[in-house]
Amino acid sequence: MGKEKTKTALLEAGKKVFLEKGYNNAGIEAILQTAGVPKGSFYYYFESKEDFGLQVINHFAAIYQSNIDLYFDNESLSPLDRLRRYFESICERLESQQCRNGCLVGNLSQEMAAQSEVFRARLEEIFQDWVNRYAEVLDQAQRLGEIPSHLDVHELAEFWLNSWQGATLRAKATRGTGPLRTFLNIMFGYILQVQA
Amino acid sequence: MGKEKTKTALLEAGKKVFLEKGYNNAGIEAILQTAGVPKGSFYYYFESKEDFGLQVINHFAAIYQSNIDLYFDNESLSPLDRLRRYFESICERLESQQCRNGCLVGNLSQEMAAQSEVFRARLEEIFQDWVNRYAEVLDQAQRLGEIPSHLDVHELAEFWLNSWQGATLRAKATRGTGPLRTFLNIMFGYILQVQA
Repeated sequence: MGKEKTKTALLEAGKKVFLEKGYNNAGIEAILQTAGVPKGSFYYYFESKEDFGLQVINHFAAIYQSNIDLYFDNESLSPLDRLRRYFESICERLESQQCRNGCLVGNLSQEMAAQSEVFRARLEEIFQDWVNRYAEVLDQAQRLGEIPSHLDVHELAEFWLNSWQGATLRAKATRGTGPLRTFLNIMFGYILQVQA
Repeated sequence: MGKEKTKTALLEAGKKVFLEKGYNNAGIEAILQTAGVPKGSFYYYFESKEDFGLQVINHFAAIYQSNIDLYFDNESLSPLDRLRRYFESICERLESQQCRNGCLVGNLSQEMAAQSEVFRARLEEIFQDWVNRYAEVLDQAQRLGEIPSHLDVHELAEFWLNSWQGATLRAKATRGTGPLRTFLNIMFGYILQVQA
């Protein structure tokens, strides 16, 4: 493998192992094995396990961001349909692995927020980026009259992110997408007052 | 210490260490130290770390349940006020430790649901007990006309639990009660359609 390819393989293996075992419990050996990369090369690419953890987070934050863009910048859909299709796509992705893994950013926040200020600050920054994207699309929907004008789109975007994280957590506990479907029903039906 | 007192001290130390470090990362030595209990006595009280983990969960599930009862069985309050006061009390408790710890049941679900079927099943059972209690109080509120009659109280109770877990997770990431306050505003203001 070339250098860039090896590094990407390690970052992808990191995500996989973090999702299965969490950060603290993830051994560097297991990450190297998952990536199929020889021992000893880890510290060529990363200064420390913390540096690696942050690079895994940044790598996947960029991928998640492009996935949001894919839906939210799709001008052939109405703002509300962009939002709906995006969350339905995550629902399908989580369902494809029986909702076992949840969300990398949510999992690591739960585990690391109190243990590492560096991780907490970076993860919260990513959450805020997502909230801003949700607020933008909700604002567009409101300007077009797709959702009620009395809604505070910034507050709602915060609530949306947090509640979705909770639904993802509960989906892990129930091993099914029920909590995600309930989320979509309540958010679209009761709050945005449109059919889910 | 007497036997019961020692066991309780170990369970309380377990909760403290699990909240700070998670289950996998919690060393038995650290738990004994936190409890001020001599080494060697752990396996007198518990068969294994897993047995200990489950007993910590059961011990605190019982305490959380009595706390729910304290509010939800208080007939001097209207059903809606029971619900509101209960969640405000959790909000204050989380605030008192800068929202660092979150919820034991939520944290362990996030960490253990995919790793241990025994933990997942027990944690999900506790979540379901809570959902049932929320549904009861919402049903009482609905019968008294405190909340709109079109709401499906069972679906809403599920959503309530999951979204609160998400708000608690995000409170850890933001290190503040903002997400909990947003939750109360949206749930009471937009969904139950009463003043928060």
